[in-house]
Amino acid sequence: MSSQASADQTHFPQPAPSASLADAYRASRRLTQALVAPLSDADATLQSMEDASPAKWHLAHTNWFFETFLLRDHGTGFQLFDEKWPFLFNSYYEAEGARISRLSRGMLSRPTVAQILEWRSAIDAAMEGLLDDPALAPLIALGISHEQQHQELLLTDIKHALFQNPLGPAMWDDAAPADVIQTTDQAWHSHPGGIVMMGHQGSGFAFDNEGPAHRVLLEPFALADRLVTNGEWAQFIADGGYRTAGLWLSDGWAWVQQNGIDAPLYWHEGDHFTHTGWRGRDPAAPVSHISYYEADAFATWAGARLPTENEWEAIGQQDDARGGNQLDSAVPPSPCGGTALFGDCWQFTRSAYLPYPRFKPAEGAVGEYNGKFMSGQFVLKGASCATARGHSRSSYRNFFYPHQRWQFTGLRLARDI
Amino acid sequence: MSSQASADQTHFPQPAPSASLADAYRASRRLTQALVAPLSDADATLQSMEDASPAKWHLAHTNWFFETFLLRDHGTGFQLFDEKWPFLFNSYYEAEGARISRLSRGMLSRPTVAQILEWRSAIDAAMEGLLDDPALAPLIALGISHEQQHQELLLTDIKHALFQNPLGPAMWDDAAPADVIQTTDQAWHSHPGGIVMMGHQGSGFAFDNEGPAHRVLLEPFALADRLVTNGEWAQFIADGGYRTAGLWLSDGWAWVQQNGIDAPLYWHEGDHFTHTGWRGRDPAAPVSHISYYEADAFATWAGARLPTENEWEAIGQQDDARGGNQLDSAVPPSPCGGTALFGDCWQFTRSAYLPYPRFKPAEGAVGEYNGKFMSGQFVLKGASCATARGHSRSSYRNFFYPHQRWQFTGLRLARDI
Amino acid sequence: MSSQASADQTHFPQPAPSASLADAYRASRRLTQALVAPLSDADATLQSMEDASPAKWHLAHTNWFFETFLLRDHGTGFQLFDEKWPFLFNSYYEAEGARISRLSRGMLSRPTVAQILEWRSAIDAAMEGLLDDPALAPLIALGISHEQQHQELLLTDIKHALFQNPLGPAMWDDAAPADVIQTTDQAWHSHPGGIVMMGHQGSGFAFDNEGPAHRVLLEPFALADRLVTNGEWAQFIADGGYRTAGLWLSDGWAWVQQNGIDAPLYWHEGDHFTHTGWRGRDPAAPVSHISYYEADAFATWAGARLPTENEWEAIGQQDDARGGNQLDSAVPPSPCGGTALFGDCWQFTRSAYLPYPRFKPAEGAVGEYNGKFMSGQFVLKGASCATARGHSRSSYRNFFYPHQRWQFTGLRLARDI
Amino acid sequence: MSSQASADQTHFPQPAPSASLADAYRASRRLTQALVAPLSDADATLQSMEDASPAKWHLAHTNWFFETFLLRDHGTGFQLFDEKWPFLFNSYYEAEGARISRLSRGMLSRPTVAQILEWRSAIDAAMEGLLDDPALAPLIALGISHEQQHQELLLTDIKHALFQNPLGPAMWDDAAPADVIQTTDQAWHSHPGGIVMMGHQGSGFAFDNEGPAHRVLLEPFALADRLVTNGEWAQFIADGGYRTAGLWLSDGWAWVQQNGIDAPLYWHEGDHFTHTGWRGRDPAAPVSHISYYEADAFATWAGARLPTENEWEAIGQQDDARGGNQLDSAVPPSPCGGTALFGDCWQFTRSAYLPYPRFKPAEGAVGEYNGKFMSGQFVLKGASCATARGHSRSSYRNFFYPHQRWQFTGLRLARDI
Repeated sequence: MSSQASADQTHFPQPAPSASLADAYRASRRLTQALVAPLSDADATLQSMEDASPAKWHLAHTNWFFETFLLRDHGTGFQLFDEKWPFLFNSYYEAEGARISRLSRGMLSRPTVAQILEWRSAIDAAMEGLLDDPALAPLIALGISHEQQHQELLLTDIKHALFQNPLGPAMWDDAAPADVIQTTDQAWHSHPGGIVMMGHQGSGFAFDNEGPAHRVLLEPFALADRLVTNGEWAQFIADGGYRTAGLWLSDGWAWVQQNGIDAPLYWHEGDHFTHTGWRGRDPAAPVSHISYYEADAFATWAGARLPTENEWEAIGQQDDARGGNQLDSAVPPSPCGGTALFGDCWQFTRSAYLPYPRFKPAEGAVGEYNGKFMSGQFVLKGASCATARGHSRSSYRNFFYPHQRWQFTGLRLARDI
Repeated sequence: MSSQASADQTHFPQPAPSASLADAYRASRRLTQALVAPLSDADATLQSMEDASPAKWHLAHTNWFFETFLLRDHGTGFQLFDEKWPFLFNSYYEAEGARISRLSRGMLSRPTVAQILEWRSAIDAAMEGLLDDPALAPLIALGISHEQQHQELLLTDIKHALFQNPLGPAMWDDAAPADVIQTTDQAWHSHPGGIVMMGHQGSGFAFDNEGPAHRVLLEPFALADRLVTNGEWAQFIADGGYRTAGLWLSDGWAWVQQNGIDAPLYWHEGDHFTHTGWRGRDPAAPVSHISYYEADAFATWAGARLPTENEWEAIGQQDDARGGNQLDSAVPPSPCGGTALFGDCWQFTRSAYLPYPRFKPAEGAVGEYNGKFMSGQFVLKGASCATARGHSRSSYRNFFYPHQRWQFTGLRLARDI
Repeated sequence: MSSQASADQTHFPQPAPSASLADAYRASRRLTQALVAPLSDADATLQSMEDASPAKWHLAHTNWFFETFLLRDHGTGFQLFDEKWPFLFNSYYEAEGARISRLSRGMLSRPTVAQILEWRSAIDAAMEGLLDDPALAPLIALGISHEQQHQELLLTDIKHALFQNPLGPAMWDDAAPADVIQTTDQAWHSHPGGIVMMGHQGSGFAFDNEGPAHRVLLEPFALADRLVTNGEWAQFIADGGYRTAGLWLSDGWAWVQQNGIDAPLYWHEGDHFTHTGWRGRDPAAPVSHISYYEADAFATWAGARLPTENEWEAIGQQDDARGGNQLDSAVPPSPCGGTALFGDCWQFTRSAYLPYPRFKPAEGAVGEYNGKFMSGQFVLKGASCATARGHSRSSYRNFFYPHQRWQFTGLRLARDI
Repeated sequence: MSSQASADQTHFPQPAPSASLADAYRASRRLTQALVAPLSDADATLQSMEDASPAKWHLAHTNWFFETFLLRDHGTGFQLFDEKWPFLFNSYYEAEGARISRLSRGMLSRPTVAQILEWRSAIDAAMEGLLDDPALAPLIALGISHEQQHQELLLTDIKHALFQNPLGPAMWDDAAPADVIQTTDQAWHSHPGGIVMMGHQGSGFAFDNEGPAHRVLLEPFALADRLVTNGEWAQFIADGGYRTAGLWLSDGWAWVQQNGIDAPLYWHEGDHFTHTGWRGRDPAAPVSHISYYEADAFATWAGARLPTENEWEAIGQQDDARGGNQLDSAVPPSPCGGTALFGDCWQFTRSAYLPYPRFKPAEGAVGEYNGKFMSGQFVLKGASCATARGHSRSSYRNFFYPHQRWQFTGLRLARDI
């Protein structure tokens, strides 16, 4: 639903030098394959719910993107690797024709991971001839960003799938012991308000939904300097947070009642499920795997509120260097300290995902990326421990439905000043 | 879901003179009763879907409001008319305790309409002692506005219920022949953009969600001077609008497919269902009973877009005199010409229903009115032919889920300039 | 679902004298109207679930039967009373064309009960000309039996509808105090087994599913001489009956778990809901409103079993005089003593509802009555306090799905000897 | 749902010589493993619907049976292979404690097929010590029959899973060309009726639901000498069979409408899906993969009816040698000629699956096999091409719900004479 990617070519006036783009392409492709490496063919076939896709599907779909929009549309001597596969690995591009129903992706024991890896090798070989073409650089950059999004989804989807197994299997068995995290008192970044430019403005790549850049008028506000922690969440629970109707949005309260929600996803007693299996929870680590409803209820309980996307971005613009512990190799993603804007959890804003002023969807199938999802979802800012390094930026707009929580979703409080 | 009402007492610094408030109270009460007059007890018991309530329930719930928040909380010698009835006629106020499940409202053959009217008489008699108390004026004004909202819901709910009957019964049999409407060419109100004050600012009554007043920065835009018509909608249909995935939001397309949608609600061949039964459609009249998804798809098809709530309000501020054909007596509501901002159909905006900067819900049960509905819904502006005269204003924020269309919902196009 | 009626003309060789048939027709018509008399138009419009129909619908449907299969098919100068009403009041006769969806029956606030009574008067007047025609006697007898079935459904459906109302309204306010019932020790009717004729054999009316008469071979068995009581059921509950998986059929256990079943329908603490409102339960009265699953689990718990339909009928043949407290006027139905075979509750058998050897459905629309329901249902024998007097007989086969329990359903134990 | 197995020890007075039982054990275990051999670990993990289980689950569950009821209950020095696995591989034995929800079986990418095969080897080794114990022979025979049932389910479940894949993968790629089948004119086996013994009577193994043997009284009838063919089914379709309400049971017609049914499962144009992928249909081969509803409608259309289980068994008793093309090695199952009673398709009877006179469930967990499924299902007789050779007999009672059709289900007509 929330997969996003679109070349907004008007926001890509100065493509990065082709040499580094080619390297970025190769590194991104290798990373996807490294993420799949610990999985068996059966692991990679699992689909645990309609929102999620099998790992092998992500492996294949990201390849389908390059085969379709680069090699088919711009290559020479193009031939489909397998003419039946586009039906399987198209996601939601209506303009690209019929496709397998989303719920049936979990039935794809064939092709195997090995066959898909063979396909990827073939595409990579063919792509070598296009990587230096400056005219294609925006599309290639789009394909890389698209693949980075699916790297994160691959990780959150397989986590959800393995969680269904009563054995609690680990994807990576040997977890390096996490550093002990010290919770700091929460401090606040203040902002004086005023007219601020929002949206992507630079020469780097951005998705179409990040633009056009435009002015907004902000009132003074403050944003917390760190994320809410597991320990603070435990206080919310202990204080009856999940049983107090007055803290919740009406839709949220119905969701709590109907689903018997009483804790974040993956919590069980003092443990939580991770890519390395069941582990003890660190009270000082950022809370994760919460829904918008939960984030909003917590903020109300805490006497604060969620930030708007503009508020978050106004602070984030000061910090686009963005360190954090994002993903750059195939190691288990895990939140670290929660003090960076980017890198632990995606952070809910109270802003609905809607078009910016003068937004126009791109033409053609790639234009289906973002605009058509603009109803019913909320914007998240930042990045998570499972986001590819360099993928995010302050203008980035991630988006999910308010009940969804299988992503690494957390919250950072805001307040009026 | 979307019933709204809340005394934002901070926005009611100068209550209207008690004499006229008392008159307003009495007029509003009479209007509700007049709306129910053409209905049999059985008609008034019907509930056609979870979103709708029986007419008798509206009749009783609006009375419960005054019994509870005025007479119980502020009266003397208060005694419940019937101690079992609050359980039946509370709507969603969690703080007021347990209540009948929404889906069971349609099982209330008892009490009868006659019994409820008797209750209303008793409450009206008791209220006479409070109508002149200036300290209660804000709450009374809230109760009147609340009752006006339910007058409109009563009309849209009973329309939906009678529509289920294959006999197509009319609520009012004798429809005055509508004036022939001339469609004018669409013209545009332009706005130069800039910093504009939004939200309720005056001394009159307003709901809490209309404030606080605050500044916003607008880009230049234009708003159509009339609503989209039935005739224009027929062109959209003829052009394959309901079969063209590229025009639709992703959620909207799924809704169209799953529900086999191919026209506005209540359309059947050249006719549409009204409070006076099945009638021919006037091509020049504003299209009504469309969902947000349909409104958005139409705007895309027309090469335009929906306005934001700020844009609509900026134009609306010039027009708060607001004529139109709103409801002021128990006659069949029907759209007339579509050229007034207020009075034909509620108009979808592309703005999600979210809190204004520094919004704080009111304390206590009445504070449950608006804030808790702030997820997943879209704002509509204006008023419809079924809105009580004087109920709306440019700062008014109505809200519904994007698939709902049993209200008198239409659209007015906007574009960038 | 289970409405049954069909003229099996081969089982009606000697129609009853037309004089008494005419009287039976008139008495049956009056009884239906008497049952509706205590209901308001709104009461009579309620539909509480898909299995049930509004009282006014029963009132009209039974009339539709005579209008359609007698007056239309065999009358002279026939004209429909209202040409739109057959669409509303056909039930499931596919051969009679399109009809309103079952779930929409509860939307029929129009026509009113008064209008339907007017229609019934017109049909009764026209029927007078046909009541003496011997050729039509079988069809008229069928129509009377059909109407008797709907009298019982009317009573069980309105009970279920009124039960939904938290006010617990009574259909009849003045309940005669029930006689105090003395529970007797359970004794057993023994049967030696052997070859026995089953099915309807006499000259009276019977439904097609009761024939053809045929031989069966029975093993020796015993049938309890009275029904299981409320008091015995309370012991089953106290012994953990609803929490012991091993007592239940697999489908039954799933039904218990999914619906949180822990008592018969209409039980609440020491009371149960009746046509005269909430009343204390008599431990000596037969338990009622149980599903097949519950009946089967109880029998297992009691170390007995349910009888087969053949076993029940073999005993019942000795008792076709059938007293009991069946319905013969518009008074509140209530179980009395449980010692009669007929008259307290329909009694579950362990026999699926399937065709008898050489069964052939009747031709034409009336042939749709019984044969098409022969999958998934169980046979019940006897009659209930809400069954019209004279309606039942030992060959009678009532049938319901194993989870249904809004009828007056009880159980009588059997065992091998 | 329909897995059956239970040692009715009273029907096993003369256990087969232990030597041949040991051989039977070993052969059965090898066959299961041979059936899984063509499947990848991912194939064997697929679960396509709640009714079906993954191949690896069948592989493990059949092993769990021997580990639990033989080695744990009767072995010496018993130790669980893995203490977490019983939770995964118990099926529905309430007495054996908690177990994974049926719908989650498809999430078991771990343990792998290889790990389960290792477990099977360990169990087989331990079982060697018990195979010669005459006291355990009945339980071992039960375990073998239980495993044979799961061999058939494994084949029908994996067929359904592979069918979901748009690639239409074959489990066995090299199908031997089927012999050309000659349709013979349908002839009839006549039976004079009378008193006949039914149920299992011999000294061989039988499930508890096949007894006790008992007398029944049959009327004269005739049973077709072959199954209905694909070609005859095509005539039914061409004659509008799926669009003619009058041919269908009421529940069946609702099923057809709600699911858009217009052909047997696995049919697409002139082809059907098989274990060797998509193949052309042979008009002379028996039709398969039909529901009870379809079988009943066809019989009505053909002017015949389905046999009762007693009728079928009375004919089958003459033919217990039973050849046919049942399963005895890991080759693709395929219907052959349709003239044998056993071996092409399970054949629907019109008899509900209910207990025989004086039936008593066995004590203990193994007693949960059959009795608890006795509601809502129909009996099928015979055997299919996927039934293990020697598994079936004339007293065998297979059973499924009337809408289910992923088994090799066909029909054989009957008629009164």
